[in-house]
Amino acid sequence: MRLSTRNQLTGTVAAIKPGAVMSVVTVELDGGQQVVASITKDATEELELAPGKPVTVLVKSTEVMLGVE
Amino acid sequence: MRLSTRNQLTGTVAAIKPGAVMSVVTVELDGGQQVVASITKDATEELELAPGKPVTVLVKSTEVMLGVE
Amino acid sequence: MRLSTRNQLTGTVAAIKPGAVMSVVTVELDGGQQVVASITKDATEELELAPGKPVTVLVKSTEVMLGVE
Amino acid sequence: MRLSTRNQLTGTVAAIKPGAVMSVVTVELDGGQQVVASITKDATEELELAPGKPVTVLVKSTEVMLGVE
Amino acid sequence: MRLSTRNQLTGTVAAIKPGAVMSVVTVELDGGQQVVASITKDATEELELAPGKPVTVLVKSTEVMLGVE
Amino acid sequence: MRLSTRNQLTGTVAAIKPGAVMSVVTVELDGGQQVVASITKDATEELELAPGKPVTVLVKSTEVMLGVE
Repeated sequence: MRLSTRNQLTGTVAAIKPGAVMSVVTVELDGGQQVVASITKDATEELELAPGKPVTVLVKSTEVMLGVE
Repeated sequence: MRLSTRNQLTGTVAAIKPGAVMSVVTVELDGGQQVVASITKDATEELELAPGKPVTVLVKSTEVMLGVE
Repeated sequence: MRLSTRNQLTGTVAAIKPGAVMSVVTVELDGGQQVVASITKDATEELELAPGKPVTVLVKSTEVMLGVE
Repeated sequence: MRLSTRNQLTGTVAAIKPGAVMSVVTVELDGGQQVVASITKDATEELELAPGKPVTVLVKSTEVMLGVE
Repeated sequence: MRLSTRNQLTGTVAAIKPGAVMSVVTVELDGGQQVVASITKDATEELELAPGKPVTVLVKSTEVMLGVE
Repeated sequence: MRLSTRNQLTGTVAAIKPGAVMSVVTVELDGGQQVVASITKDATEELELAPGKPVTVLVKSTEVMLGVE
């Protein structure tokens, strides 16, 4: 499936912190920066996420903010 | 100001496509991947965004999705 | 690619209203309700969206609100 | 109150999974598809959500993504 | 309709900047601070928004970030 | 850092309800209204949020909805 979602970055799961119904997943992007995702615990289980697993990080462009010094 | 926003990635503005009230800004992340932001045209002007300008890309962790092959 | 995105509804494009950099796409869901998406004009063109085209509507669960009478 | 929110779909609560401060609510849309909402546990209690209760599912159009095969 | 949406602030429309398909609406909150909303132009017309009109500003709690000095 | 984020309201932390990985923070805005933020528990700890602490509430304009009576 091709998505309208503008941002699709490649990376690898670095860590998963499971909560009650939500989980916080840290991803190491290819190129070296980190992204954190707060997704449902159900999703982490269905996708069988685990440290070392390659993932695509998706973010809709309307969710991205910019800052300048 | 320190922010609760988990994702703060460094990069450089690659292109700006101005619309009527919204603009679409493409950022080249340090490390080589690209991110697109749909922000208000007012914001692009206030921040004086232009190609080559260093920026921080900010995304709240609740906005991040993950995909696996 | 399997996605963490909880909501993946099937439907058909009913109408597209193109703007300067954003477009508003109306989708008729299978089952008869309608969904409106504000996405970049670039995305509508890349996906070659047009009335009658089958699409999947995706929404992260953290973006969904509920109301009761 | 009339809302700017473009997407207001009717359905019925199918299941509620309560967490520590967030809850995951599954709604069966009229017409047959399902939607999952991650909302605060406070909201589920204030709205007295329970399986079988009719609800309106609300999603801002800027939060909707589209996919095509 | 009672909403799960945690944030419902009262205010008055201060200005509307119409775009092609999106509009940017500035609201003066009761108490004196300002909020800007990027909503569809369709919504501004359906709600007949105009300067001086009382409105409720709604924001889902998962969309709110915090900063400290 | 100057941000593209249109909405930056000043206030004071009124209460924090910690969950497993998410926390719900209530902020009393200067001017008297309240805002609730669902952020990661990690963020509440890093920012050392506590009742009485002055904070800035940030919301991207694309996340704001409006309602009229």
